[in-house]
Amino acid sequence: MTSIATEQTQAVLLQPGVVAIQQAAVPEPGPHQVLIEVAVVGICGSDVHYFDHGRIGDFVVEQPLVLGHEASGTIRALGSAVVDRQVGQRVAMEPQETCGRCTQCLSGRYNLCADVQFFATPPVNGAFAQYVVLESYRAHPVPDSMSDEAAALIEPLSVGVWANQKAGVQPGDRVLVTGAGPVGLVCADVARARGAAWVGVSDTNDFRLQTALQRGANQVINAAAGPLTEQIEPVDVILECSGATPAVHAAFAAAAPAARVVLVGMGTPQMELPVAMIQIKELTVTGTFRYANCYPAAISLAASGVVDLDGLVTGQYELSEAAEALQAAKKNPQTLKPMVYPGR
Amino acid sequence: MTSIATEQTQAVLLQPGVVAIQQAAVPEPGPHQVLIEVAVVGICGSDVHYFDHGRIGDFVVEQPLVLGHEASGTIRALGSAVVDRQVGQRVAMEPQETCGRCTQCLSGRYNLCADVQFFATPPVNGAFAQYVVLESYRAHPVPDSMSDEAAALIEPLSVGVWANQKAGVQPGDRVLVTGAGPVGLVCADVARARGAAWVGVSDTNDFRLQTALQRGANQVINAAAGPLTEQIEPVDVILECSGATPAVHAAFAAAAPAARVVLVGMGTPQMELPVAMIQIKELTVTGTFRYANCYPAAISLAASGVVDLDGLVTGQYELSEAAEALQAAKKNPQTLKPMVYPGR
Amino acid sequence: MTSIATEQTQAVLLQPGVVAIQQAAVPEPGPHQVLIEVAVVGICGSDVHYFDHGRIGDFVVEQPLVLGHEASGTIRALGSAVVDRQVGQRVAMEPQETCGRCTQCLSGRYNLCADVQFFATPPVNGAFAQYVVLESYRAHPVPDSMSDEAAALIEPLSVGVWANQKAGVQPGDRVLVTGAGPVGLVCADVARARGAAWVGVSDTNDFRLQTALQRGANQVINAAAGPLTEQIEPVDVILECSGATPAVHAAFAAAAPAARVVLVGMGTPQMELPVAMIQIKELTVTGTFRYANCYPAAISLAASGVVDLDGLVTGQYELSEAAEALQAAKKNPQTLKPMVYPGR
Amino acid sequence: MTSIATEQTQAVLLQPGVVAIQQAAVPEPGPHQVLIEVAVVGICGSDVHYFDHGRIGDFVVEQPLVLGHEASGTIRALGSAVVDRQVGQRVAMEPQETCGRCTQCLSGRYNLCADVQFFATPPVNGAFAQYVVLESYRAHPVPDSMSDEAAALIEPLSVGVWANQKAGVQPGDRVLVTGAGPVGLVCADVARARGAAWVGVSDTNDFRLQTALQRGANQVINAAAGPLTEQIEPVDVILECSGATPAVHAAFAAAAPAARVVLVGMGTPQMELPVAMIQIKELTVTGTFRYANCYPAAISLAASGVVDLDGLVTGQYELSEAAEALQAAKKNPQTLKPMVYPGR
Repeated sequence: MTSIATEQTQAVLLQPGVVAIQQAAVPEPGPHQVLIEVAVVGICGSDVHYFDHGRIGDFVVEQPLVLGHEASGTIRALGSAVVDRQVGQRVAMEPQETCGRCTQCLSGRYNLCADVQFFATPPVNGAFAQYVVLESYRAHPVPDSMSDEAAALIEPLSVGVWANQKAGVQPGDRVLVTGAGPVGLVCADVARARGAAWVGVSDTNDFRLQTALQRGANQVINAAAGPLTEQIEPVDVILECSGATPAVHAAFAAAAPAARVVLVGMGTPQMELPVAMIQIKELTVTGTFRYANCYPAAISLAASGVVDLDGLVTGQYELSEAAEALQAAKKNPQTLKPMVYPGR
Repeated sequence: MTSIATEQTQAVLLQPGVVAIQQAAVPEPGPHQVLIEVAVVGICGSDVHYFDHGRIGDFVVEQPLVLGHEASGTIRALGSAVVDRQVGQRVAMEPQETCGRCTQCLSGRYNLCADVQFFATPPVNGAFAQYVVLESYRAHPVPDSMSDEAAALIEPLSVGVWANQKAGVQPGDRVLVTGAGPVGLVCADVARARGAAWVGVSDTNDFRLQTALQRGANQVINAAAGPLTEQIEPVDVILECSGATPAVHAAFAAAAPAARVVLVGMGTPQMELPVAMIQIKELTVTGTFRYANCYPAAISLAASGVVDLDGLVTGQYELSEAAEALQAAKKNPQTLKPMVYPGR
Repeated sequence: MTSIATEQTQAVLLQPGVVAIQQAAVPEPGPHQVLIEVAVVGICGSDVHYFDHGRIGDFVVEQPLVLGHEASGTIRALGSAVVDRQVGQRVAMEPQETCGRCTQCLSGRYNLCADVQFFATPPVNGAFAQYVVLESYRAHPVPDSMSDEAAALIEPLSVGVWANQKAGVQPGDRVLVTGAGPVGLVCADVARARGAAWVGVSDTNDFRLQTALQRGANQVINAAAGPLTEQIEPVDVILECSGATPAVHAAFAAAAPAARVVLVGMGTPQMELPVAMIQIKELTVTGTFRYANCYPAAISLAASGVVDLDGLVTGQYELSEAAEALQAAKKNPQTLKPMVYPGR
Repeated sequence: MTSIATEQTQAVLLQPGVVAIQQAAVPEPGPHQVLIEVAVVGICGSDVHYFDHGRIGDFVVEQPLVLGHEASGTIRALGSAVVDRQVGQRVAMEPQETCGRCTQCLSGRYNLCADVQFFATPPVNGAFAQYVVLESYRAHPVPDSMSDEAAALIEPLSVGVWANQKAGVQPGDRVLVTGAGPVGLVCADVARARGAAWVGVSDTNDFRLQTALQRGANQVINAAAGPLTEQIEPVDVILECSGATPAVHAAFAAAAPAARVVLVGMGTPQMELPVAMIQIKELTVTGTFRYANCYPAAISLAASGVVDLDGLVTGQYELSEAAEALQAAKKNPQTLKPMVYPGR
């Protein structure tokens, strides 16, 4: 590790609305970890929420927190026991560490590990920094042809991969995505990539609907234009990415018998649901909490060009402009993914 | 069909609260149907609901209706094309006819067939009658050792088989059944029969809880005694058989990560649910609408003695006493299954 | 049915190698059937096998048999009870009739119905005829944009849809297809359409390998060029379409732990398999027998252009040239799909 | 760890047929490990095979090896980081350590981990010793009511749990177990515990068949008495525990359409299989390699009395008699489980 700097710059959330640029030590990788020089970090809605409110549900920012968990970079040093990675490899970072010993981890559901440490979730620091350390197997190599931005956005794409996997989308399925933010857009992309017969996307933001259409949706529906069931045929799968109660109700009404519903978007903790419909149609409803084992599939979908991640980028910011990046969506409704470059 | 009577007696619901005994023609079996002399019919909550209110949701009794769909009997005549059944066979009746041609039927989900005709669901008559006809393959032979009452109660047992199958209950699972009415009891029975590590049953009726305990539940919980989560460890499966909102909320709180929840009991069409919990724990929630392909398994569980159906019988009535049977539960909270015998 | 001819022309297999053109009555559709004027019929390997050998395993041609089961056409008349189809609709024919009453049918596995009647499988006649009748729900409407040839080839595409569904191919999977005949090619197409990370195709026929490459395979492997395991990385899915023992063994050796293997191609009834490998890697091995519920998905994949069926056509024949069509593959190794047009 | 001895006694396989009693250091548990005083160890067929032949397939005994992997004991010391276990707890040992970082481990299939270290599989020592160390989460606490012998035999019971889970045995299923050795017996037990409608067991050893019958099998079949298909109805599940080619062929012939076959018993690496039958009946065939996540379920089945493990014990040996225990089966065909007690 001779040529690595010992000091680095981070953007730290001190309190709601206040981000400071600070110096910090470059961390040393543990035996099974790698040290990664961060290339670029996408802004997620959760970052914005912590910036605005200092908390998400039970997760409260009680000490200075480095935000950012959609990140790519280059491996600069290896822990003493690492044999499966090399210095110089470009990687997409899967931003979580799990215990590997609990029932959830042992069952392949490590995203439900009670001891998970996830980037930018208090009190775990994220990637608005020049260097981070990560377990080697969470640093997924990407091909040379993939941009740093796309490598960073493997993270939200994994959310879409996971939602589609939970829904079991396959050829012949009619898939409705409610909510056309970045996660809704990649959910629609992955549904198409899995061979769905029809992918419809609903939202109330016409820019986002046009984006969905350009990315390959078969139909876009402005939810404000009238009852959804009058605009589309029944659907086999619903990927709910809005967190909005009216969207959820409209979607359930459009569900075909035995449809699968995945609640991806987070809204209110409690929501009135049409349970009689769940029973009479025997719908299967589940939710997603991050993802497990999705990075390889996401990387392959992006690398092959089936999913266009670069097209989601709507702004580029230096680390010193992190606060501005976090407010981009508020200022411009056409914002999808502002990107922060700690190395610039 | 020489020795079959041409006239028979039926108990007909004329309007809410009014059941008349009427004469009717004995039906002729179609080519693939069998004529069954009804032995005994169990009273279901849906029969009671039609009797009390004249409707269940969108199903409205608009013309005289023969109630009863939990029935057993003996085959007395065969349709011209029937080769898979014999006169004299004792059978449990699966009380539904489906189209066999739609997407749901062709996919093995015939219970979701839009053209289903189900006994005692308006305008389809049920089994409070001396004779009924049924497609031959819906008349499931039962062994000699099985009582007529048990053969009739294969119907509600099938509900329990279906719920457990949807939940995928297997050895090692901790299973919570909320609501200890007849369906809740058989749901618990089947969970035990599938090797669940622990089966707990909650209710507020101590008689029912004691019944659950006697039938083999590992623990019973009076839901009025305090928060469920303080009385039990987290559970892997919830079979919700109460339709009661507080029970649903208590159960969700007790769910382990990745738990499976099956909503069996019907309550209000809309219900506030803890959606954030569905997401954070990645619960899978589904409902049941009757059942499909469950009779053979239910018959085997009852025939082997693993599930005791005779023990559910709490009253015996002649056909002329059908109205009384329909009101038994109102008069005696220890009522489980009143049985009506059309042939007596 | 006033304008329909009462006589039609058929090509009938009289004995191995002998096909006669004969006149026959135009059949009348039963109550739930439609009468279809056949547009075009693809030649399947099974047609060729019956033509050459007069039998396939236990299925023996003991009376004159009309071959052909990959067929499209136009509905010309409706049975008395048909309400879900219209005269004039262009359709892909799913060439099977099943009982709808047995355990297999009721479970959604109608392809395993013991009473199935399948076109061109003795003693059931096929589609080398101007007119055929079919249950209405087996006549699947196709969009105007789809050619008659593509509509006919929905049949072999369904084989590929079914094989991929059995294997559960999904994004991230590395899929190996062994055997690049028409079925192997569409298996590879569907794997790609389901988002497989990598699709490799092996064969010993370079023309077929080039075709696979042009259709979108990521890699083609000439099986004669050396051990497969030296040419590719381990694979998650094997779709075996050759029926050749060496291909099967090479594929098993290339299987990653927990890989899924689907045996599509029929070879010898008995085959030596590496069972220790099935155990040590916990491979899942299954086979396909035709397909169930695959036409809608196949139609959507072809209609959207994701799978190119027209590109499989390598010859066009009039009905009177049926014998020639059946021998096309023998004469030209670059034959994929000879098509027979009964109406020309 | 003050009161723990520093020296202990082990039984070591020096070469085929030669076991020596040696002194060895008591190991120190690593940070996440526990030190266990071994109570009792069951003899497995693999132990016998190593004793007789010095190898199993590619696993060769090249240095002295401590055999035994079916073990129970009491925790005597904790590693520095262990918080989930206590000194004095009685445990069933899951005798494997896995990497927790590879695709297989992360997917919940840790039994397929390429870096697995399994007790008594060269070069990893087993439990014919007074003390062993184990990762804390592999030391599964058992209730006081469970005997040491039963706790040790949780290991083979886990094989049966895993096989049944792979087969998805559920109420209504007809299950055939071929081979009535200890693993076949517990496979049959678990099938019954999962509610199978019928469990049949075939073997050629009448003592074993009688044992199967006494344990609750519905029917036992002496495979030497004639074709299996003449003695039983078709079956939905086959749990093959004999490794014998004739048994495999007889079982496949008895398989119903869509039956699931699990190859548990190891026989020849290559075996001729009826592949046409796999295709025509669409059988699903898989194998088992040890098990994953099965101990909790196995413990619950034994603790509840549903599976009787004590009844499998057929001999008790001191550590100095290990060689004799390893030869018990050869001397007495009524041997099921000889048990070795290192502490006596």
